[in-house]
Parts: sequence; structure tokens; C-alpha cells
Amino acid sequence: MKRWLRAGATLLVGAGLGASVTHLLSVRGGEEEPDGAGLLSIIPVLPIPKVQASELTVSPVGPGVVMKYGFPSLANIKTRESYVTSYDPRTRTASWVIERLNPATLSGSSDRKYCEFKEDDSVHGCHRATNADYKGSGFDRGHLAAAANHKWSQKAMEETFYLSNVAPQNPHLNQKTWNNLEKMCRSLTKHYLNVYVCTGPLYLPRPEADGKLYVRYQVLGQNHVAVPTHFFKVLILEQANGRGVELRSYVLPNEPVDEKIPLERFLVPIETIERASGLLFVPNIMKRTSNLQAIASR
Amino acid sequence: MKRWLRAGATLLVGAGLGASVTHLLSVRGGEEEPDGAGLLSIIPVLPIPKVQASELTVSPVGPGVVMKYGFPSLANIKTRESYVTSYDPRTRTASWVIERLNPATLSGSSDRKYCEFKEDDSVHGCHRATNADYKGSGFDRGHLAAAANHKWSQKAMEETFYLSNVAPQNPHLNQKTWNNLEKMCRSLTKHYLNVYVCTGPLYLPRPEADGKLYVRYQVLGQNHVAVPTHFFKVLILEQANGRGVELRSYVLPNEPVDEKIPLERFLVPIETIERASGLLFVPNIMKRTSNLQAIASR
Repeated sequence: MKRWLRAGATLLVGAGLGASVTHLLSVRGGEEEPDGAGLLSIIPVLPIPKVQASELTVSPVGPGVVMKYGFPSLANIKTRESYVTSYDPRTRTASWVIERLNPATLSGSSDRKYCEFKEDDSVHGCHRATNADYKGSGFDRGHLAAAANHKWSQKAMEETFYLSNVAPQNPHLNQKTWNNLEKMCRSLTKHYLNVYVCTGPLYLPRPEADGKLYVRYQVLGQNHVAVPTHFFKVLILEQANGRGVELRSYVLPNEPVDEKIPLERFLVPIETIERASGLLFVPNIMKRTSNLQAIASR
Repeated sequence: MKRWLRAGATLLVGAGLGASVTHLLSVRGGEEEPDGAGLLSIIPVLPIPKVQASELTVSPVGPGVVMKYGFPSLANIKTRESYVTSYDPRTRTASWVIERLNPATLSGSSDRKYCEFKEDDSVHGCHRATNADYKGSGFDRGHLAAAANHKWSQKAMEETFYLSNVAPQNPHLNQKTWNNLEKMCRSLTKHYLNVYVCTGPLYLPRPEADGKLYVRYQVLGQNHVAVPTHFFKVLILEQANGRGVELRSYVLPNEPVDEKIPLERFLVPIETIERASGLLFVPNIMKRTSNLQAIASR
């Protein structure tokens, strides 16, 4: 029990008890500042092994710009008009989806009334979610990359309706607090050059009556689409004039969340998401900026 | 409930109730035989999308020979002296491990008394299992690629002791029926040119009291190492003189299994493993042989 608390307390205690420290990493010219040294042990920038996502370079134009700060993992990458995703064929949903938001992507005449949720036929039939899997399940088809982030192009918006960009989400969460989080991401484009948003599902363990930790999640329909226990959003906020990036990472439970709770209460250290998801963010970002400020709470 | 039964019955009803048909696929010169047509709908050989594991070609010498029949998936591939594996950083164990067994790999003076279970430092510290995670858990460190399959080289045997080639396994299963299955794999080398063995964990859903399906598995230690609910072994049995390959696929629950139950009772259609694991076997194999016989029960 004690061990569990050490490993995952921030996530498991839920809202209202977020971490109370601001982690600051300030690395200039590739060298650590003395003040930053202790904090590197909290948000790890360990050397990473051979074949790593961060080695991948992308074109500075086209959808590649979305991946400026690296790939959290390399499995089953799909590149769309306006987002990039890694598909998990076991859970029938994405491992992560990355978008780049700025005033240009947010404006346009695209309309979601012309969009329909659709199977992703680039996924093998054995491993694909269908609309029938969701029907009558009690869960919304929750967008990972939000439709309203891609108003610049009807095609880009339509592509957010692939079921590979969707996960079963509690309807109250989807329509209230999660929607507020998405709106907040868009509003940040007023203050930053670009807002990179990485969204994905989590399957977090909980202690049960026997004192042991278990991961437990429902699966939907004939294709056993996994219902995440939580969702994460990692924001990489790019400042103008090369002044570096800010990192904010959120975890929300896949259940109704009172809209009165300030969104900052759901900030968690990025390491918590890295551990739980099997993904890596910080080593990739550190290769691409000399100034990273990781904000774990406000 | 009805839907669930259709989708996963073979696996969920457990031992003693395996499928009672032998699926035969006989495809020659790239064209289906008329008799095989109906069966293709049971074991799917659907066209596979763009960036696929099966596209990857490997050297005909070195550890590459292990992968003659293709990669079940492409994430985090690690190539060892005598096996190839795909690591799952979220569960802290492998998605699959593939070995090639023949009389040459099984004989030699290598001894497991010189081997010790060890962390795999090619895995990021955030996503790595340690011996401490297993300690006192009540689970064995169960080899996926078995040590005794690699007597030809002490280095090869030692590499089977990486914790990335290990999953938490019920001690009774590990030491009795699973051990018998491993012995059977070795004994098949007397009758086939090569025995390709692919082993991995499964996390299968079960119905709970509310009538819904849930995946539920324990996680161990500080690193939350996932305890699989089941294990699979897929055998690709290569016949001499290019007479094609036989496919046998087994699923065993991660719990004590009576040794008196014949191993054939754990045979399942390969499609069941493909669906549950998120992996693909048949499309890859079909690209590399003109004659595949898939045996789902005896």
C-alpha cells in the first residue's frame, strides 16, 4: 500500500489534491543550470536507448510540423491532414494523438454537421472499432484530437471523426469538463506561438479489497473497444522568438467531473503520465529546445 | 452477453471445451484452392494496410532467420543472439518473443546455473521491470523464450533471463503444464525442419456481475508490472523439402492447470489470438509460404 502511494499518489487521489510544487527545468546551451540539477531527478531526462522515437526527423512543412517535439512512441503511426497518431491495435483506440493549434488552424468555415464518425479502414478488421461497438454502450465517442481545433480545413475536421481518433468517454465528462479543457487549449493560442496538444487514454491501477493493485477497464461491443480509466493531455506551449517551451500535463478520470473544480487541479508531473502510458515526452522535447519549463501545478 | 459469446467464447470457456474443428488452409501458387475458400473467412488473410510488419525483410543469416515468417508487430523490436522480441513499455513485459528451435539450438553445454534474471537496461528506467517488482509477489518470473531452447550458446541462454523476456506467471503453471508445453515444442524438432515459437501475454476480458465485459489484471511492485490473464504460444512448424508449414496456436490461463488435461485441449483458432493480442500472424506467413495448414484442434 505504501509502495503504491509512492508510485502513483498524484493520479490516484483524484481532483482537489494535485501536486503543490512547480517544477522548473532550465537547461541552456545543452548544460544544466546548477539550480535545475535536483529537479532533473523528478522529471527524468535519462539517456535513451538505441532505436528511439526521438531519432526520427520530420519535414518542416506539411503534417510533419505537428511532430516538431518528437514522437512519444513509434508504433502504428498514422499521419493525417492535421494530426498524427499512434494506434494501439489491442485496445482498438489510439495510444496518443498530436495536434498543433494556432489561430490559423482554429479559423475557417468547416462545419462538423458534415462530419460522421467512421471506421478507420487503414486498421486491420481484426483490430478496428466500429460505430456498432459504441451503440447503446452508454459511452460517447470522445474525440482525442478535437474537431473544433481543425476548422481551417473540412478534410482535416472530417479526419478527426475516424474511430481511431476516438475513445469511449463518459458523456458528462465529454460534454462538460473535457470540453472546457479543449476550449482552454484553444484559448492558449492567444498567448503562445503554437500550442502542441498530445491526448491519449490511460489504464491506471487501483487498490482492491485484497490490498493488491489491479488495472480494470470495461470493453465495448464485438470488437472489445477498451474504455480508458483516465485521459491525459500534454500541452507543449511554444513561446515566440525562441524563448523556449512550457509543458503542462493533465490527467482526468473517465467519469463525471464537477465543472467547478479548476482545471489546474488536474495538472500532474509529466513523469506520472510517462510511467503510466509507456510513452516518453521529455527526452524528445529536450533534444529540440534549450529551455523547458515544466508546470506541474499552479 | 450473446455478443460476447460470439466474439470470444473459445478462450473464455477455458480448458476442456476447445474448438472441435480442424481448420485447413491450402493456398498454392498464390491462388486459393476451391476447398479453402470458406475457411478463409474463419482465419482471415485480409489485405493489410500500408506500413505493415510483413513488409520488413531480414537477412537470411544471423538472428534474422528467427523472423522468417514475419513480425507480428513492429513496436520496440529488440534483437538478441537467439530470439527477437517486441517490448510493451506500458505493461513492462514483451508483446511477443519469437525463437527458432531445431536440434542445433537445443544441444550444447550451456547451463542455467550461470544465468541470473536481470533488468533490461535497453528499456527506459520509467518502463522497466526489476527483480524487486517480482519479489514476494507470489508470481514466478516466467520465461517467454525458454532458457532450455538455447543450449547452443551460453550468451543466448543468458539473454533469455532479461526481465523483458519474462512475465509474472503462476508458479504451478510455470513449473507444470507450461513447462510441458515448452518440452512439447522441443520434441517437435524431431519431426520438423524448424519449429518457430512465438510466445506472449494476453489480457482477456471476462463478464462481471453487471453483465458487462471487463479486462482486469494485477500489477506488481513499484513499476506496476502487468500480470497477464493468459499466455499464448503460436508454433510455426516448417516441414522439410518446402512442403509448407503447419500452424498450431495455444492459449493457457495464468493459473494452475491440471497436467492431466491434454495440451491439445488448449489449441485455439489463430484468429482468436490475433484479435485479443492486437498482433497479426497469418497475413505475414501467407506471404512466405504457398502451403499453410492451420490446426485449431486435434
